[in-house]
Amino acid sequence: MSLYRTFTAADAVAYARQYGQVADPQNLVSAEEIGDGNLNLVFKIRDPQGVSRAIVKQALPYVRCVGESWPLTLDRARIEAQTLLVHGALCPRHTVQVLHHDPELAVMVQEDLSDHHIWRSELVKGRYYPLAAGQLAEYLAQTLFHTSDFYQNAQEKKAEVSRFANPELCQITEDLFFTDPYIDHERNQFDEALLPQVQELRNDAPLRLAVAGLKHRFLSKAEALLHGDIHSGSVFVAEGRLKAIDAEFGFYGPIGFDLGTALGNLLLNYCGLPG
Amino acid sequence: MSLYRTFTAADAVAYARQYGQVADPQNLVSAEEIGDGNLNLVFKIRDPQGVSRAIVKQALPYVRCVGESWPLTLDRARIEAQTLLVHGALCPRHTVQVLHHDPELAVMVQEDLSDHHIWRSELVKGRYYPLAAGQLAEYLAQTLFHTSDFYQNAQEKKAEVSRFANPELCQITEDLFFTDPYIDHERNQFDEALLPQVQELRNDAPLRLAVAGLKHRFLSKAEALLHGDIHSGSVFVAEGRLKAIDAEFGFYGPIGFDLGTALGNLLLNYCGLPG
Repeated sequence: MSLYRTFTAADAVAYARQYGQVADPQNLVSAEEIGDGNLNLVFKIRDPQGVSRAIVKQALPYVRCVGESWPLTLDRARIEAQTLLVHGALCPRHTVQVLHHDPELAVMVQEDLSDHHIWRSELVKGRYYPLAAGQLAEYLAQTLFHTSDFYQNAQEKKAEVSRFANPELCQITEDLFFTDPYIDHERNQFDEALLPQVQELRNDAPLRLAVAGLKHRFLSKAEALLHGDIHSGSVFVAEGRLKAIDAEFGFYGPIGFDLGTALGNLLLNYCGLPG
Repeated sequence: MSLYRTFTAADAVAYARQYGQVADPQNLVSAEEIGDGNLNLVFKIRDPQGVSRAIVKQALPYVRCVGESWPLTLDRARIEAQTLLVHGALCPRHTVQVLHHDPELAVMVQEDLSDHHIWRSELVKGRYYPLAAGQLAEYLAQTLFHTSDFYQNAQEKKAEVSRFANPELCQITEDLFFTDPYIDHERNQFDEALLPQVQELRNDAPLRLAVAGLKHRFLSKAEALLHGDIHSGSVFVAEGRLKAIDAEFGFYGPIGFDLGTALGNLLLNYCGLPG
C-alpha cells in the first residue's frame, strides 16, 4: 500500500523538523506554500522570527497547473532528488542541496535559498549577474562530462541509464518542445497578431525536418545525466552565486539538450528585452 | 535461492520432453552436447531414429572457451530469449523460434534447425545461397525499424531499453571490437608475419579516432533492439531459408552496429577467399 498523502503545512513543518538538519528543529514553526510552478507543492519552513530555514517540496500525482485530469507519475520526485544528489556530488557549488528525500511520499527537504532569486525574474528586471553565465557553464560542464562515457565507467553508466528512465516527464518535453509548436494544438498560446509568423514556422519543411532530427536525438542518445529543464526558471542566483534546482526532468539524454535549453532560454530573454 | 544447476544430457532430454512442443515427447530419448561456441551448452535432442527434434541451450556462469576464471552473467540467457521473442514476433521467417525459456535455469528450448547449416561454414566452403543476403537484410530491416523510435511508442521503448540493459555482454563487444585490436593485448592473436600491418593499424591516429567515435556511439545511442552479434556464425541457412540465432548480445544500440557487423563479416569472408 502506498504511504503517499498530500502534505498540509503542518505536515511540512513536522517533516522539516525531522529531516531539515537544523540545530534547533523546534524553532521551525510555520510553513508557507509558495509553489508557483506547474507541477508541485513547495513549502518554505520558517522560524518564529519569520526567517525561512528549509524547503519542503512534494510532487502531486497530477500536473498542478492543469489539474487531476492530467495525472503524472510521483516517481518524478525520486528522479529529481537522485538527479540533484548526483549533480550535487559533481558540482556542489551550483546544485541545490538535498537534505532528505522519501520516494514513497514523493517529498524532499532542500536547503533554503531565500537569499537567492529566480534568475528569470532578475533577467526580466534587467538585473545583471556577471558571474552567472560562467557558473551555469561550470554546472553543465561538471555534471554532463562526469556522467558521460567520457568519464563514467561504461557498465555503471548502463545501470544509471535504467535508474533514471523517466518516460512520463520525457514525453512532456517530446510533445512541448519537439511536436506541439509545429502543429495546431490546444496547448499552444500566442498572440493573434503573430499568426503569420506561426504559420510560416509550421510550413517551413526544412525547419520541421531539422526539429524531427533533434527529437530523434532526444529520444535515442543516452549521453549523460541531463538536468532536463535547465532554463532560467530552474536557476537561483545571488551576488556571486548560482544554484540549479528543479531536476524532475532528469534522464540520460543528449548533452546538447541541456546546453541548448540554457542558451535558448537566455536568447529568449534577449529577444524580449525592450528594443 | 537460485535454482540454477548445470544441465546433464538427461536433464536436457527431460526438459525438452516437457517444453519442446513435440506431439510425442516420450520419443525424445537422447541428447548430444554440440556447443562449439564460446559461451554456452547446446544439446541436440534426438528421437529413437536419431533425428534431432529440438535444441536445449543453457548459459554457463562463465565464458566457456576461457573457463571459470572469466565469470559471466546468466542474465544473458534471459536477454537472448527475450530478444529472439521480440525479433521473432517482428520477423518470424528469419528468427529461430523460442519454444520455452526459464531465466532462473538460464535455459531455453528452440526449434530444431538440423536441416540448416551455419552460414560461416558454407561461406568458407564457397557455397552460395542466392537468397541469403536479401533475407538477412529483411531480418535486419524488420527488427531494427520496428524497435526504433521511428515505429515503436517512445515511452514503451524507454522501458524496453531498461529491460534489455546488457552491461556485461556489451563490455565484451566494447573491448573486443573497439579497444583491444588497437592495443597490445593478450587476447589478440595474429600471425607473426602480419606484425607490420598490425603496427601500422595501431599507429594510425585518424583510424583510432574514428574507431573511438564509433565506440562512443555504441555506448550511447539507444536506437533499436540490436541482435548485437549478427555475424555469419549467428546465421543458419538452407535452400531458400535463413534464421538468425544466438542473440545474447541483444541490447538497444546504434542501428549501424548490426548492419556493420553483418556487412563486415561478409567482407572478411570475401577477403579470405582464395585469390
